Amino acid sequence: MSKLLIKNVTVIPMTGQDDKITSGEIGIEGDKISFVGPVGTAPANWGAEEVIDAAGMVAMPGFVNTHTHAAMTLLRSYADDLPLMEWLSTRIWPLEERLTADDVYWGTMLCMLEMIKSGTTTFADMYFYMDEVAKAVEVCGVRACLSRGMIGVAPTAQLALEETDEFIAKWNGAAGGRITTMVGPHAPNTCPPEYLEKVIKLAQKHNVGAHIHLAETKAEFDDIRKNYGKTPIELVNDVGLLDLPVLGAHCVHLTQEDIKILKEKSVGVAHNPESNMKLASGIAPIPQLLAEGVTVGLGTDGAASNNNLDMLEEMRSAALLHKVNSGDAKAIPAYQALEMATVNGAKILGLTDVGMLKTGYKADIILIDFEKPHLYPKHDIYAHTVYSAQSSDIDTVIIDGRVVMKHGKVEGIDEREILENVQKCADRLVK
Amino acid sequence: MSKLLIKNVTVIPMTGQDDKITSGEIGIEGDKISFVGPVGTAPANWGAEEVIDAAGMVAMPGFVNTHTHAAMTLLRSYADDLPLMEWLSTRIWPLEERLTADDVYWGTMLCMLEMIKSGTTTFADMYFYMDEVAKAVEVCGVRACLSRGMIGVAPTAQLALEETDEFIAKWNGAAGGRITTMVGPHAPNTCPPEYLEKVIKLAQKHNVGAHIHLAETKAEFDDIRKNYGKTPIELVNDVGLLDLPVLGAHCVHLTQEDIKILKEKSVGVAHNPESNMKLASGIAPIPQLLAEGVTVGLGTDGAASNNNLDMLEEMRSAALLHKVNSGDAKAIPAYQALEMATVNGAKILGLTDVGMLKTGYKADIILIDFEKPHLYPKHDIYAHTVYSAQSSDIDTVIIDGRVVMKHGKVEGIDEREILENVQKCADRLVK
Repeated sequence: MSKLLIKNVTVIPMTGQDDKITSGEIGIEGDKISFVGPVGTAPANWGAEEVIDAAGMVAMPGFVNTHTHAAMTLLRSYADDLPLMEWLSTRIWPLEERLTADDVYWGTMLCMLEMIKSGTTTFADMYFYMDEVAKAVEVCGVRACLSRGMIGVAPTAQLALEETDEFIAKWNGAAGGRITTMVGPHAPNTCPPEYLEKVIKLAQKHNVGAHIHLAETKAEFDDIRKNYGKTPIELVNDVGLLDLPVLGAHCVHLTQEDIKILKEKSVGVAHNPESNMKLASGIAPIPQLLAEGVTVGLGTDGAASNNNLDMLEEMRSAALLHKVNSGDAKAIPAYQALEMATVNGAKILGLTDVGMLKTGYKADIILIDFEKPHLYPKHDIYAHTVYSAQSSDIDTVIIDGRVVMKHGKVEGIDEREILENVQKCADRLVK
Repeated sequence: MSKLLIKNVTVIPMTGQDDKITSGEIGIEGDKISFVGPVGTAPANWGAEEVIDAAGMVAMPGFVNTHTHAAMTLLRSYADDLPLMEWLSTRIWPLEERLTADDVYWGTMLCMLEMIKSGTTTFADMYFYMDEVAKAVEVCGVRACLSRGMIGVAPTAQLALEETDEFIAKWNGAAGGRITTMVGPHAPNTCPPEYLEKVIKLAQKHNVGAHIHLAETKAEFDDIRKNYGKTPIELVNDVGLLDLPVLGAHCVHLTQEDIKILKEKSVGVAHNPESNMKLASGIAPIPQLLAEGVTVGLGTDGAASNNNLDMLEEMRSAALLHKVNSGDAKAIPAYQALEMATVNGAKILGLTDVGMLKTGYKADIILIDFEKPHLYPKHDIYAHTVYSAQSSDIDTVIIDGRVVMKHGKVEGIDEREILENVQKCADRLVK
């Protein structure tokens, strides 16, 4: 088994706010972390095959992006400054109807490239042509939780169930365990209760969770209340969906009762501050959810409504937005933002050995180069990471024990080929 | 006079939303732009001495950061997740009391380095030991509008007036015109009316404007209302301050009457979204100010409350914050955010030949490298710049016709020396 030593590194293990190690080392064997500790932790004669001297760098767990639509990179900056429904119906959906399997493959490859470069090592995706997404994940070495999006009111409703069945059977646990799967009912306003019942059965058959948009806009909240006399959260709870492990994206419009349900049913919330801001969807009550003990991760949503996949920026936006929105400058302090982007994210994707740097955990590690003007002088390392760092400071990315990026260069991927193919796909789509 | 040609470049001249040039060239003679246009615009036999091939890049005016405290880079991440008054009184002021001239010089040098690297070519500063700030500006080649901060309720009130008098006499128009000056009364709650009257006289003597914090927090608004029976804007207007050209930082807490005054008196507003978010100061009514015709620029505020000086990020935060706050996804569209960061900023600093790429204007130009995964595929160039770009995409920076950064390397500055000196200053300060 390969043995990799990272030495002379400052470590943010994310096991606790007081656990940072100023002069540390990390040992990796195969896909796992063997040890993390101060200099001298490595057993005598451990014999690393490869050594990374990370002087001036900070090691932390790779980011977990809990909600995205990878191939929407193809639509980045294609439609902006519009509210959700107008944006979807007049601009995004007409283009998405024309997407081919090939488009989804190249769009996802672009997403992989961008994510690796910005330190994301795991992501949760919901889209279609998911075989292509899985192939891109396999090639690029990233960790992913994939869902075939299902719209119960569309003509493809039955097909989506069948494809999901096949997709999960084929890909759950694939790529050496890097790929896991969930069912992906789109949202309560596009998947009626009778459809959700079928979706739940499918999830139970495969013993997987569900990834769903929940209470994203006020319009969704109002429509469901009008049609069913319930909130979106109450509706999916009553149909039994929340008895599965659920990854609920957005959760912007919630009642106090909804928050109680999310807590009781251990729903994981994927908070997408920049997408919610850009589409003017609203501000999720994140400080309250966290205070009630709900696990909240962070997501970028698709690149078309963000317009990048930068988790450092997403942390910063979350921390800043909730301070000004609550009028409390102490809301979402830096360390809590880091938890959302790492530990919490892993937890809500059901990954029990990801999100911390700890013996026995998966070696999903990023090295951030702190020798930059905007990261000087050295005061609080957590504040520096959340409020000052930028994704180009990510120097090295290790996923599942494999170095997928070194000094900013993604290994084994032809960057130029991806950019050219993506442009070709985009040019054809908008023609 | 030196002649520099930038060729094969996409140009965002900021002269109008329809004016972008897909395949353009820019000619620079001395400190000025000679021409901007599509390929072939250069006069025959123009004879450039230096040519920059900017294929794959976008040229636009450098950013104008309309409100900062440069040397506060020294306090970056020293105190976070606290509200303004607690942050100032328990953490920032005690440390600022110990700052030396040398600290301010190195803190400002770090600021210069960070600003140049992130594409800022002009900034407005208010601090103390301003000779040191001016020296750093002179050395680094940046354009700046400098003010010695004056606190009327402090023991240094009289000294601040005298130092301002000397500072303006010495530095206004210095560094080949790159340095301009303003008087810098700190804020209406720290400068009583009788003090502001002296400040106004001083500004009139030198024929300069005033840079002041206005209505930053609810507490300031309430205190002034209680003590004077007026709003902060009404107070400074009644004392005659707004008859000067005024750069008003923040303007968060405004009445409808205040907005009318700002408009009538042509006050330039420096909007600092990230600082206002981080300190939970509130959300300035920017869409309304813009709709009423008030000129609004963007600022980062000091690095201690941001915690970086990244104007691309500040544009993005402004555009996203006002969408979600107004519930209108069309608020602050991408091009308007660009205007705030360039044209508007120059206007409110009183610079009549800065902020656009136009014949006869100062050659303050940045080249952004668009050959990055997160800037693919090519759809809307304005949306890409505002919503997707990051400061490390800035490849080349030209100020006053001089190339101050090329391919990410700042010319004529020893980066390592600055970082080391800054760390020494910071270590001494927190000891």
